[in-house]
Amino acid sequence: MPQPPSKPVHVAILGGTGYTALELIKILLRHSGVTITAVTSRTEQKPIGQVHQSLASRLELKLEDLGPKQLAERADCVFSCLPHGVTAEIVPELLAAGLKIVDFSADYRLDDAATYQEWYDHKHPDPTRLGKVVYGLPELFGPQIRGANLVANNGCYTATAILSLAPLVKAKLIEPQDIIIDAKSGVSGAGRSAKQNLLYCECNESLSAYGVGKHRHTPEIEQIIGRFTGTPIEVIFTPHLVPMDRGILATIYSKPTRAVTQTELLAHFREFYQPHPFVTIVDHLPATKDTSGTNFCHITARVVRGRILTITSLDNLIKGASGGAVQNFNLMYGFPETMGLL
Amino acid sequence: MPQPPSKPVHVAILGGTGYTALELIKILLRHSGVTITAVTSRTEQKPIGQVHQSLASRLELKLEDLGPKQLAERADCVFSCLPHGVTAEIVPELLAAGLKIVDFSADYRLDDAATYQEWYDHKHPDPTRLGKVVYGLPELFGPQIRGANLVANNGCYTATAILSLAPLVKAKLIEPQDIIIDAKSGVSGAGRSAKQNLLYCECNESLSAYGVGKHRHTPEIEQIIGRFTGTPIEVIFTPHLVPMDRGILATIYSKPTRAVTQTELLAHFREFYQPHPFVTIVDHLPATKDTSGTNFCHITARVVRGRILTITSLDNLIKGASGGAVQNFNLMYGFPETMGLL
Amino acid sequence: MPQPPSKPVHVAILGGTGYTALELIKILLRHSGVTITAVTSRTEQKPIGQVHQSLASRLELKLEDLGPKQLAERADCVFSCLPHGVTAEIVPELLAAGLKIVDFSADYRLDDAATYQEWYDHKHPDPTRLGKVVYGLPELFGPQIRGANLVANNGCYTATAILSLAPLVKAKLIEPQDIIIDAKSGVSGAGRSAKQNLLYCECNESLSAYGVGKHRHTPEIEQIIGRFTGTPIEVIFTPHLVPMDRGILATIYSKPTRAVTQTELLAHFREFYQPHPFVTIVDHLPATKDTSGTNFCHITARVVRGRILTITSLDNLIKGASGGAVQNFNLMYGFPETMGLL
Amino acid sequence: MPQPPSKPVHVAILGGTGYTALELIKILLRHSGVTITAVTSRTEQKPIGQVHQSLASRLELKLEDLGPKQLAERADCVFSCLPHGVTAEIVPELLAAGLKIVDFSADYRLDDAATYQEWYDHKHPDPTRLGKVVYGLPELFGPQIRGANLVANNGCYTATAILSLAPLVKAKLIEPQDIIIDAKSGVSGAGRSAKQNLLYCECNESLSAYGVGKHRHTPEIEQIIGRFTGTPIEVIFTPHLVPMDRGILATIYSKPTRAVTQTELLAHFREFYQPHPFVTIVDHLPATKDTSGTNFCHITARVVRGRILTITSLDNLIKGASGGAVQNFNLMYGFPETMGLL
Repeated sequence: MPQPPSKPVHVAILGGTGYTALELIKILLRHSGVTITAVTSRTEQKPIGQVHQSLASRLELKLEDLGPKQLAERADCVFSCLPHGVTAEIVPELLAAGLKIVDFSADYRLDDAATYQEWYDHKHPDPTRLGKVVYGLPELFGPQIRGANLVANNGCYTATAILSLAPLVKAKLIEPQDIIIDAKSGVSGAGRSAKQNLLYCECNESLSAYGVGKHRHTPEIEQIIGRFTGTPIEVIFTPHLVPMDRGILATIYSKPTRAVTQTELLAHFREFYQPHPFVTIVDHLPATKDTSGTNFCHITARVVRGRILTITSLDNLIKGASGGAVQNFNLMYGFPETMGLL
Repeated sequence: MPQPPSKPVHVAILGGTGYTALELIKILLRHSGVTITAVTSRTEQKPIGQVHQSLASRLELKLEDLGPKQLAERADCVFSCLPHGVTAEIVPELLAAGLKIVDFSADYRLDDAATYQEWYDHKHPDPTRLGKVVYGLPELFGPQIRGANLVANNGCYTATAILSLAPLVKAKLIEPQDIIIDAKSGVSGAGRSAKQNLLYCECNESLSAYGVGKHRHTPEIEQIIGRFTGTPIEVIFTPHLVPMDRGILATIYSKPTRAVTQTELLAHFREFYQPHPFVTIVDHLPATKDTSGTNFCHITARVVRGRILTITSLDNLIKGASGGAVQNFNLMYGFPETMGLL
Repeated sequence: MPQPPSKPVHVAILGGTGYTALELIKILLRHSGVTITAVTSRTEQKPIGQVHQSLASRLELKLEDLGPKQLAERADCVFSCLPHGVTAEIVPELLAAGLKIVDFSADYRLDDAATYQEWYDHKHPDPTRLGKVVYGLPELFGPQIRGANLVANNGCYTATAILSLAPLVKAKLIEPQDIIIDAKSGVSGAGRSAKQNLLYCECNESLSAYGVGKHRHTPEIEQIIGRFTGTPIEVIFTPHLVPMDRGILATIYSKPTRAVTQTELLAHFREFYQPHPFVTIVDHLPATKDTSGTNFCHITARVVRGRILTITSLDNLIKGASGGAVQNFNLMYGFPETMGLL
Repeated sequence: MPQPPSKPVHVAILGGTGYTALELIKILLRHSGVTITAVTSRTEQKPIGQVHQSLASRLELKLEDLGPKQLAERADCVFSCLPHGVTAEIVPELLAAGLKIVDFSADYRLDDAATYQEWYDHKHPDPTRLGKVVYGLPELFGPQIRGANLVANNGCYTATAILSLAPLVKAKLIEPQDIIIDAKSGVSGAGRSAKQNLLYCECNESLSAYGVGKHRHTPEIEQIIGRFTGTPIEVIFTPHLVPMDRGILATIYSKPTRAVTQTELLAHFREFYQPHPFVTIVDHLPATKDTSGTNFCHITARVVRGRILTITSLDNLIKGASGGAVQNFNLMYGFPETMGLL
């Protein structure tokens, strides 16, 4: 297990204009083991306080367009908030330059290049590395994350689904091919690009499903959960856009392999997540607001008419992205897992 | 079929302080065949413009506490927005006084008193009438509504679920006991009582499931859909509270009895609802905003991994309550079905 | 005064993709004296139900790119929702083709070309017509609107400010150069273009001032109010963006020329607006929700520490735009002023 | 100046069921110099994770009904979130028991008992202490706070107004009796009591003024600003309720005593707040979201038509309440001012 460094780790953030980068910066500003030394953008070269007004006077850096070499001079570790496709094109150089990487994109999450190409519509730029990169969900892959130089940080829906399902699948408590994930997310999950469908007056006072049967988190969920069982997993995953900034609630319907009770399920989940500070099993029905602005994930379970319902809440930008990333970073560097995150 | 009356129908609204009464009044103010002659309340006796500020200068009536006799003097028909339990205690008197009734409560929706008592926790006050009252969903029970004196107006979630499922059940396209209804509603569905869990700061920026496995619309959905098949229906119904004023979106997962395609499903729904002006089958995924403030219901269907998904949007206060009530009223009195509702 | 036409007026809507056009269509669909015969767009040529999903099955028209001649073949009257600049380039042709026009843009609201150029940053394309076009606020300019072929429909903030101030200025009750208009608007006022600052996650849970000292409604307010007095008007106008779809609330601070009481002010406003069905003087403090979705404007007044406060609420898309436009249209064609608007 | 204690300060929170208590707990959980030893409530005796679900697994305390003696056994310092009236009845006992107090109520903010009685409608229970308690706005009264045992934490609107106006009044840059404060607040400022006017469906999509000319923060603003000048201050203060959880934006209109420019004003504000880490002077127009969830206050200034506009944003629950309280606590105990607050 790595020892925490004696001096602050210098970190750079790639792709600093979006919402996950903003949350990441806010967390890192509270992390006593970190100094942010660079924030990059290909499009903006303004002071960061102009791009994210909430950082005015809190982080005196300009956005810069930096290459791998320059990054390696400034930083020990990069958090990459770049989009998929772009990321896998620079990761090899960043690793070669000696940088550690927490990657927010989907580029290293899937194990094989064919599945990647099927769901992301382009050839993977760095296929040989696929299948060897640890999936950055610390509750499930903590030991592998500790030694890693490159971590494929989880997606937001996927974290919610996997944390809800892994304890059931691992204990062979549910049928692996009859799983329905009805998930609801705040709008920040869709990013900060100027698109008409993300305008305030389009999203506000409205709720809709999207990407039905086609959302890219589907294969990611199936692959990761599949590791805990011998049988292929099949899920129906239906994401919905909810008029709120942040938060995901997933209501997941699965079929038990034997009769179970709510009490038994809650006890099983509690035991499974007992060592993990950020997953809380609750008796009540969780609301997204309960976990909003935090790195916590709240899970409960019910049995209704012979089906198991798991209902799970987390903050898509924090536990589902930037908070989870810092949790990974803490493990990579030997910091306490909760550092900067409470 | 009744002939439209030559003079405006005098209507009274019972229980006028809540959100469904407000929507009802707004619709009736646009209905040229109606004069609102009384609005009642047991608790408030103020001008209605003080209880509903949006009605200031639009309806010059005071809320009054009126008995059946007084109501019969003032009105031909009552829309009752009273809560369940209370309603069935006065309906017999109202009918005896010669009034027609559109009842918003659940009191006459279920067919038997035992089921009512099981779900509503009290003995039904008027059990002999149960099973003889028409269920007020005009797309399905139009002919019976036309001659009725008492109509049990549908619930909001139930309208959404039944309109989505009836065409499938009737055509025996789905298994009757493997149906999951994941429904999401705006907060107005919970009424206007001062409860902490309905405060702005509790609901805003938050989404949660509630009443899991216990919501009172469950037996109503099962009973009504069950009429279209020989087999008992079993649904898992999970309502969610969404941070928006109004609108319901239901994402419904069912198991086809044979292979079907999306194209076939959409064609089937289009044919089924072809005569009905307020149900629109859409190719795209509907948003609650598309039907908000209207009496329209938008439905689409998808096939994902061997399951049928129907995704349906309507306004809980209008198509799910007050608009549907006026649609029933129009049929009862021989007005055009769409009168006041376009 | 014009007589209402015996056959439905054929109307075309220019620039049909935005929010004001959508509201206009919804109102006109309820107006029994109108048939919508065309909706234009320079950028989209889709069925209107795809551009505005809420119109699916309600209006079976395709957006088209039509010139003045084609418009004149199809329509008697056009409602133009085109932006400023573009509008004044086609209005002369539309008038020449015999069309009546209700213009939503600012192009014909100001009386002189120099002021227009100063605030709108380009030369006016049709300067000779300026100063001769009636300002489309029916409560103040009804008689002139009745005979008009071209009406410059009011802006949303301007309607709010002018309705609040005209009774005071006309009666010389306030100092004409010490007026502060602190106005708050829902986001729909900013239109439907894909701009980052209008994204849901930028606007939601946030409130900010914008255009301080520079908003283009300033000269419009000053010019119109100025007509009721001999002295030039000077206002400080501060608009704010509020996280809600629609509604404007203006809190206006002015200095009385003599001691006045709240009672006196409310009586004065009531008398002033007595003949006008859509302006309601209320004793309570109005909320935007009270007028939301309606063509009504609620006004109250207070006296605080020697200043008059008028607090006014209206729906920016309806009374502030499309509802007011139909009110103008009704006057132009001799329909009852409230037709389609209750 | 006090030295930071060598062991964590034991703190108790009085009145733990509301929103300010929740924010306070979240901040204190991050403060390494503090242990929360008790949270009280007169009405609830549940685990705190049931009253505030977001604290589940984060703070394992039960709400208790504790008297001054019990509090003194458990704690060194209390943060009192009790309402006005109640607070001043127990503060003497708490002080006598040796506790330090940060008081969130208004009970010790005003200097004289008559003004208190006029605005709060009851006789002050502890009048002799009035006028001797330091006002807890650290940017203005830091030195007096450092030695204090009892601090009257500022109100939320008052902090916003005072931080905006103090630099102007102190430098005699504005007329002291021609100040208009048009303030807009999120709904959390109104507390967590179950009142109909605070329901989601009443507040959402709505904006209104309230307490016009009567809000209790008026005398507080006037008294505190008045200390910086010889002349009595008179403000018109108009609060508005905005559909968002949190945040205050104040747009303040004042009359300069001499010609000033925006540049000069911004420089003056920057110099005034240069030593203070939580007040940031910005060039742009601040949004409430920029300061939401933080202890920062953003201020800008403009000159429009001979008036000064200051536009100021802060989080009502943090800088306006619980964050400011911890800032006071830090000064009282000799901790770094920013501890727990970045």
